[in-house]
Formats: sequence, structure tokens, C-alpha cells
Amino acid sequence: MKHSFDLAQLEEIVSPEQVRGSTTRTIHGIAALKEAEAGDLSFLGNAKYKVDVPATQASLVLLPLDYEGEPGDDQCFFLVKNPSVALATICSRIEQRLWPTPHAGIHASAVVSKDAEVHDSATVGPLCVIEAGAKIGPGTHLQAHVFVGRGAKIGADCWLSPSSQVTSSCILGDRVRLHGGVIVGSDGFGYELVEGRHAKVPQVGSVEVGDDVEIGANSTIDRARFSRTVIGRGTKIDNLVQIGHNVVVGQHCILCAQVGISGSTTLEDYVVLGGQVGVGGHITLAKGTQAGGQTGITANTEPGVTLNGTPAMPFHLERRLVVLNRKLPDLFKRVGQLETLIEAIKKTSA
Amino acid sequence: MKHSFDLAQLEEIVSPEQVRGSTTRTIHGIAALKEAEAGDLSFLGNAKYKVDVPATQASLVLLPLDYEGEPGDDQCFFLVKNPSVALATICSRIEQRLWPTPHAGIHASAVVSKDAEVHDSATVGPLCVIEAGAKIGPGTHLQAHVFVGRGAKIGADCWLSPSSQVTSSCILGDRVRLHGGVIVGSDGFGYELVEGRHAKVPQVGSVEVGDDVEIGANSTIDRARFSRTVIGRGTKIDNLVQIGHNVVVGQHCILCAQVGISGSTTLEDYVVLGGQVGVGGHITLAKGTQAGGQTGITANTEPGVTLNGTPAMPFHLERRLVVLNRKLPDLFKRVGQLETLIEAIKKTSA
Amino acid sequence: MKHSFDLAQLEEIVSPEQVRGSTTRTIHGIAALKEAEAGDLSFLGNAKYKVDVPATQASLVLLPLDYEGEPGDDQCFFLVKNPSVALATICSRIEQRLWPTPHAGIHASAVVSKDAEVHDSATVGPLCVIEAGAKIGPGTHLQAHVFVGRGAKIGADCWLSPSSQVTSSCILGDRVRLHGGVIVGSDGFGYELVEGRHAKVPQVGSVEVGDDVEIGANSTIDRARFSRTVIGRGTKIDNLVQIGHNVVVGQHCILCAQVGISGSTTLEDYVVLGGQVGVGGHITLAKGTQAGGQTGITANTEPGVTLNGTPAMPFHLERRLVVLNRKLPDLFKRVGQLETLIEAIKKTSA
Repeated sequence: MKHSFDLAQLEEIVSPEQVRGSTTRTIHGIAALKEAEAGDLSFLGNAKYKVDVPATQASLVLLPLDYEGEPGDDQCFFLVKNPSVALATICSRIEQRLWPTPHAGIHASAVVSKDAEVHDSATVGPLCVIEAGAKIGPGTHLQAHVFVGRGAKIGADCWLSPSSQVTSSCILGDRVRLHGGVIVGSDGFGYELVEGRHAKVPQVGSVEVGDDVEIGANSTIDRARFSRTVIGRGTKIDNLVQIGHNVVVGQHCILCAQVGISGSTTLEDYVVLGGQVGVGGHITLAKGTQAGGQTGITANTEPGVTLNGTPAMPFHLERRLVVLNRKLPDLFKRVGQLETLIEAIKKTSA
Repeated sequence: MKHSFDLAQLEEIVSPEQVRGSTTRTIHGIAALKEAEAGDLSFLGNAKYKVDVPATQASLVLLPLDYEGEPGDDQCFFLVKNPSVALATICSRIEQRLWPTPHAGIHASAVVSKDAEVHDSATVGPLCVIEAGAKIGPGTHLQAHVFVGRGAKIGADCWLSPSSQVTSSCILGDRVRLHGGVIVGSDGFGYELVEGRHAKVPQVGSVEVGDDVEIGANSTIDRARFSRTVIGRGTKIDNLVQIGHNVVVGQHCILCAQVGISGSTTLEDYVVLGGQVGVGGHITLAKGTQAGGQTGITANTEPGVTLNGTPAMPFHLERRLVVLNRKLPDLFKRVGQLETLIEAIKKTSA
Repeated sequence: MKHSFDLAQLEEIVSPEQVRGSTTRTIHGIAALKEAEAGDLSFLGNAKYKVDVPATQASLVLLPLDYEGEPGDDQCFFLVKNPSVALATICSRIEQRLWPTPHAGIHASAVVSKDAEVHDSATVGPLCVIEAGAKIGPGTHLQAHVFVGRGAKIGADCWLSPSSQVTSSCILGDRVRLHGGVIVGSDGFGYELVEGRHAKVPQVGSVEVGDDVEIGANSTIDRARFSRTVIGRGTKIDNLVQIGHNVVVGQHCILCAQVGISGSTTLEDYVVLGGQVGVGGHITLAKGTQAGGQTGITANTEPGVTLNGTPAMPFHLERRLVVLNRKLPDLFKRVGQLETLIEAIKKTSA
């Protein structure tokens, strides 16, 4: 990390339940238990790495409350409820130092319509474009080359990375993060075949993105045919994800990179989709549905299922079929042997 | 929708073959039959929703000519040849109101080479860049942050959304729509391994996009090694699609989101590829080839086939193999039982 | 091609080991052997096209040293060690003519922090943004709408295409090419579920891209949680590829379009992944691992293996299983017949 902290600062940031040992070192790096050196902070985020704690060279280690070992010389343990969350809190402090809140105001090079409404506490970076009727909420930061279309509304404390776009009439809630190149409100993909040509069905709806949503770099969210495409509160979307028109994504879902959701499909809350998963159109994934990477889902799902494979099937069935498939060469051989034996028996008994 | 229409306006727009009933309501929304409320327009686009017509609360319903029911109180039916097309016509009118044709001219903040040629009736939005030798046709609209490279040619009545790019020497026909972040003319991916290093094969060809093509957000079309990558007239491409160098896509094809086409492959006319389909290099997909989502195609196809699966196979075979695969646990059991029986018979007859 | 060369110029560029025949034609095009016309250059890059050499109409043909045939009238053969490399050399010369080195300097419309360091020989194109503490090396070219974040470092002789981004603290080596819309340093995708909500784990690391790396249009490379995401020297990445946080890609790898690599995975040197391949998190692909298009890899691999399928398996096993799968309908029939026969035998012997 770019900045260093002394033990007292970190204790104040993390508020550990218990402190064991101490270190005179200034902490200037973060590393996994095995890679850490003196001066580094490390943490036990996953029980399977518990064996690495005694030998770690880290000067400070974040550990769960039930951890029983003692620190080495010039080493300190912070015992906390959730080491990963404690680490995130520290990282968040580092983040503030790395990327300090910019000064409010509109950069001279930005092109902002006189009919747009930008809150006094918002920051509009260089070469952004804000069209007529758009509204930018308090504390929101548009970094650079950001485009906000006609009549779009962006809430409070949002962060829009370079070249992200919120096109005409689309709405972002509060604390939304769009990473670079995200496009909210591209046209849905709808045509009618008329006399051998695909006639465009105009896409005159919009997109509504809830509070605390994060959308990864170069992902695309299509506007509805009419009405709205919806991304529910607290949902996190990774890079290069495609959300079709009229899709409704519930709250607190996780969509990993390169997922594609076809038009008019509904994801209920807490759906988790691995990388490159494809979901067909006009179906519903029930609450808590989970799917492994590259799964292809084309039918409604039951709440809480875990799916794998194309076409999607329950995880355990898919695992079993994978094993049996690898035994197919043997099965074909066994059937051939049975046929030979039967033939022999038939001859004998004839 | 943002704007309202009275019945007379809609009758003029749609020109229905027959009108049944009437409504005093102003139409200010569009919704599916089941969700529609008074004041909404609805439509029967798919015969399977016919049962929803009698109970719909929509004030106006677009129906096919052979629909036999009668409207309710304060409800109007427009009977038309194709309700979906009629709806599209109405949406198109809404679109014109939402996004009126901008004033022609070059925004003061755009950077346009003095050696570029921009038609008087074209609109060049804020912060666009147009390099030397580029040509922008009549009625074409570059929205914002659009890049047009050296010597690129863009036809009439095109619409280029924010941050789209037409790079050096590439050509767009008339009425082409590029959505946000589209890149026409990125380098093809070609290297020669020379002494353990990948030496770049310069990509000095270009891309030619036909009339009435639409390309979805953040899709990428690579320029040819030499000669041209071609997208045929009337073809529609969804978001995040990758078209490799020297690919020739025919006319009136449909490529859904996240499709990838490897270099030097040819798609004949009317090919339809579902989401996330991958197509290998140096092959030809014959006219009318269709493939379901996530299909992997690595060999030439016959005209009009429908494919599924990886590796691609005829749709019906793939469906059958999926069913049989799920019966594999049972098949293994049956073969085990046969082996036991044979063993017993052998003992008996011995 | 846009520019013509006479035979003497091409002989100087290519330095052939041997010249057979001659032509009076000026060379003004490049085409495959079968498509070439008089005035075109062609080449034998792949032995399987050897049969096309005698009939080619090309005026100049690049051939391997062991080619034995003689040229036709007004036709010239250049015999070279590697015709593809010779062609690349010619294309490179054409490229220089098409896209001449721009004048050094910063375009008046670019927004460059006074605390950024831009080498005198670098070119910063129109509407680029360079933040404080960033450093741009000698001979590097930022085309247009390029974003370079706070403290980012870009080496010598790099080429950054329109709307590409190198965000805060990220580092590019020398001769790196970023195509349009590439994002280096988007946030990694990391959350902790706390009381039913996904709390963001701040991503405070960076990305380090080695010398001679090329990254295709709209690809995204996430910054590390802490420490660095690494792309090794000489690696070539195609369009729409996603590299997760903390991934380490070795040297001289090839990642085709739409590949996705999950977080904390390591690719050793010379790994080659086909289009749409997905790789799970926290695994290692050993040196020289190769995988066909759409392969899904979720476990460590052995050096030099070739994989196919989801889940990934050795190429030859996957090919065999594909064949056996297609015989499943027949196998089910054979087992049914065996059951009938056994039943009959049991009856007979009863």
C-alpha cells in the first residue's frame, strides 16, 4: 500500500475485541499469511489457512475471536469478530488516502446543459457531458468523459468512472458505482421480421438502478422496450455483463463477469451467478438461486437451488453425470462383452 | 411513456383495419395485457396470451384481424394485420418525441480536422473527434465523445451513440446505428511466433458496414488483416459481441449478446445466433443457420439447420442426448444387473 | 492496400534469399493465392494451400525456401525463410504509411494536470485527460479521449487507442498497445456478506502490464485487492477479455476474445486460451497449457496439456466422449435388447 499506519492508528480504525502482543513496526503493506514480511499486515479470512498463522512474518495479524495461539516477538494479533470485514475497513481508509474526495464543482472543460441540475456538492470532472433535464445529486462524482443523457437522474454520493454513461431518462439511486465504460440505457434488442427485413421495435423505456448497486467495467444494461429494466438495491455486477431489456434483477444479487441475461427475465433477491453464465428470456430465477460458471439456464428455478451445466441441472446431478460420462468408454466395452457372452450362451443352448 | 396520445391520434398513427368499441381515456402508458391499467395501451403479440385479452384493463388493445371478442366498457380494440408492428409504429412516434432530431451543426467543443468533410445537415455533438479525411453524411448524428478516425466514411442518417468509434479507413453505410462504446475497426488478432515471441501481423485492412445495420453497446468489430471485414445490410448485432478480422457477415443476420465470431469465418444471409454462441475460424455458416444460446460451432453448416450444444449438433439430437444423459445413472445400473444375471446363467449352465 | 510498391522496394523490405522471375507490375494489393489478381502480392503461409500456387494470378508471391515451382509470365517469386513473417514486415511498412507517427506534443483540447509528467517526444491527442502524478514515457501516443489516472506510469513507445484508460497507480511497460475502450485498473469484484448485504472490499492494489503486451478492444483488467494484478511481457490479449483481480498472467501467453479469468489465478508462460474460455479462481495453469474455445477450467493443469470441454478434460478424451455421446441412443437400444434376450434365456432355462 502507498501509505503507512502505526499500530495505534490501526487499533483505532479496527477497534479489536482483544489485542495480543505488540509491534514497534510501522505497517506499510498488506499480504497473505505466507507471503507477509515484517512491516506487513495479514489476516485469517478463511479457516483453511489457520496453519499458516504460527509461521507468518507479518507484524500485525487480524484473527477471529476464537483463535488461540500467541504472537511471536515484535508481532501483534488483533482479535476481531470478522477479520475480512476488519481488513475491508482498513482498506477503505487506505482508499480514502489514495483517492481523496475531489473538490466539488464543475470542471471548466465539461459540457453541461444550462437546463441540467447539478448539486453544489457534486463534482463533474473534465470533459463530461450532461444534457438538458439531467439531475446530479449531492456528493456525486463524475470522473472524466462521463455522459449523462437528457432527463437522466443520478442520486447522492454516486461515483461514475471514466467513460461511463447514464443515457436518456435512466435513473440511479444513491451510492451507486459505475466503473469505466459502463452503459446504462443502451437500446434493447428487439425487431419484427417484416417482409424479410428486421424492423426495429423502438425501445422507449428506461433503466432504474437501486441504491448501493455497483456495476463493473464495460457492462451494459439495456433500456426497456417500454416501462423499466430494474437493478435492485445492493446488487453487485462484475465486468462485461449484459442485462437485456425489461429484465428485473432483485436485491443483493451477485452477477460475476461476462454473465448474460436475456430480455424480460426476472431474478429474485440473492441470486448468485458465476462467470459466463447465460440466462434465457422470459423466465424467473427464484430467490437464492445459485449457478456455477458457464451454466446455461433456460427454465424457471426453485428457491435456493444450486445449478451447473448447460442445460442447467442440479449441481449434484451434474457432478454425477460428469463422472459417468468419463466412464462411457468402459461402459461401451462392458456392453460389447455382454453381447458376446449372450451370443455364446445362445449358441450353447441352441 | 412520457407523452400521452388521444384515441384519434393513435388511430391516425396505426390506421387499423377495424375499430371496435371506444374509450374516452387519454393513453399515457403501454403495458402487457395482465399488467395494463385504465389509460394504458396493450397488445396481443403472441397467441399464447389470447386468454388475457378479455380481462385486460387496458383502455386500448391492438389485436390481430382474426380476433373475435368484443371490448368492455370504455375500451377500444384496434384490429390490425400485425399488432407487434403496429406497436412498433407507435413506439417510433414516442421515440421522436423523447429524442427529437437535434439541430444540425458542429458543437463548439468538438475537435474536427479541417481536412474532414461534415455534411451541413449532420450533427456533431459535444467533445467528438473527427480526424483528417473522414466524411460524415447528411442527417447523420454523432452524439457525444464519438471518435471518427482518419479517412473513415459514414453514410446518411446514421446515429452514433456516446463513445462509439469508427476508426481509420472504416466505412458505414446509411441508417447505421452504433450504440455506446461500439468499436468498428479495432485491430485483428494476428501474430506469428518467431523465436519464442509473438510478432504482430499488422492489420492494415478495414471494416465495411452495410445499410441499416445496428450494433449493440460495447461490441467490437475487428479490421481485416488486409482487405475488409464485412457486416451485411440489415444485420442486427446485440451488445458485447466480438467479430474477428476478415469475417463476412451476410445480410439480415441476428447476432445476440456476447456472441463471438473467430477470424475469416463467413455467415451467409439470415443466420441467427443466440446469446454467447461461439463460432470458430475459417468456416461458413450457410444461409438461415440458427443456433441456440452458448452453442459452439466449429464446422461448416447446412442451410437452414438449427443447432445446439458444444460441439454443435442438430437441435433434436442435442435434446435427445440431454435426456439420455440424465438416464445414465440408470443405464449403468441396468448394465451391472445384466452382468450379474449373465454370471449366474454361466454358473448354472456350467 | 492504400499505397503501392514497386518490385525493387519490396525486395529491399523483404530481403528474399532468392528471387525467381520478374514482374513489371506495381504491387497495389494483397490477397490470398486463389483471390489474387495481377498487381497483387500473395503468399504461401500454410502448406495446405501449396496446390494454389501454380494457378495464382498474383504478380508477386512470397514462398518458403523449399518451394520448387517456377513463376509464370510477368510473375515474380520471393523465396524467404518464413513467408508469413515476410508478409508482416511488408504490412508493417504499409501501416507506417497509413498511420504515420504523429507530431509530438499535447493537443490544445487535452486536460493535463500540471503535476503530470509528459515526455517531450510523446503525443497526447485531442480530449485526453491526464491526472496528477501520472507519467507518460518517450514516443508514447495517446490517440483521443484517453484517460490516465492519478499516479499511473506509462512506458516508452506505447500506443493507446481512443477511450482506453489506465487508471490510478497502474503501470504499463514499453511498447504496450491498448485498443479502444480497454480499461486497465477497474476495481476487483470483492464483497463480504454482512447482515444480508454485500459490503465492498476496497480494491487498493494496482495493475502492472509488461513490455510488448497488446490488449484488445473493450477488455478489462481489474486492479488487485492489495498488491498487483500482473500481465507478463509479450502476452497478447484479444477483445472483450476479463482479467480478475490478483491474477498473474505469465509471459508470451495468448488469450483469445471473450476469455474470462477469475481472481487470484496464475497463468504460467506460453498459455494459450481459445475464445470464450472461462478459468476459475485461485488455480494455476502450468506452462504451455492450451485450451479450445469455450473450455471451462476449474483445477490446476499440468505443463503442456491441451484441454477441451466443460469441465475441462484432455483434448483426446473429450473428443472420444463426444463420439460416444452421439452413440448413446444406440447404446440404450443395445442394452434393451440384451435385457430382452436375458429374460428369454431365463425363461427357457427355467
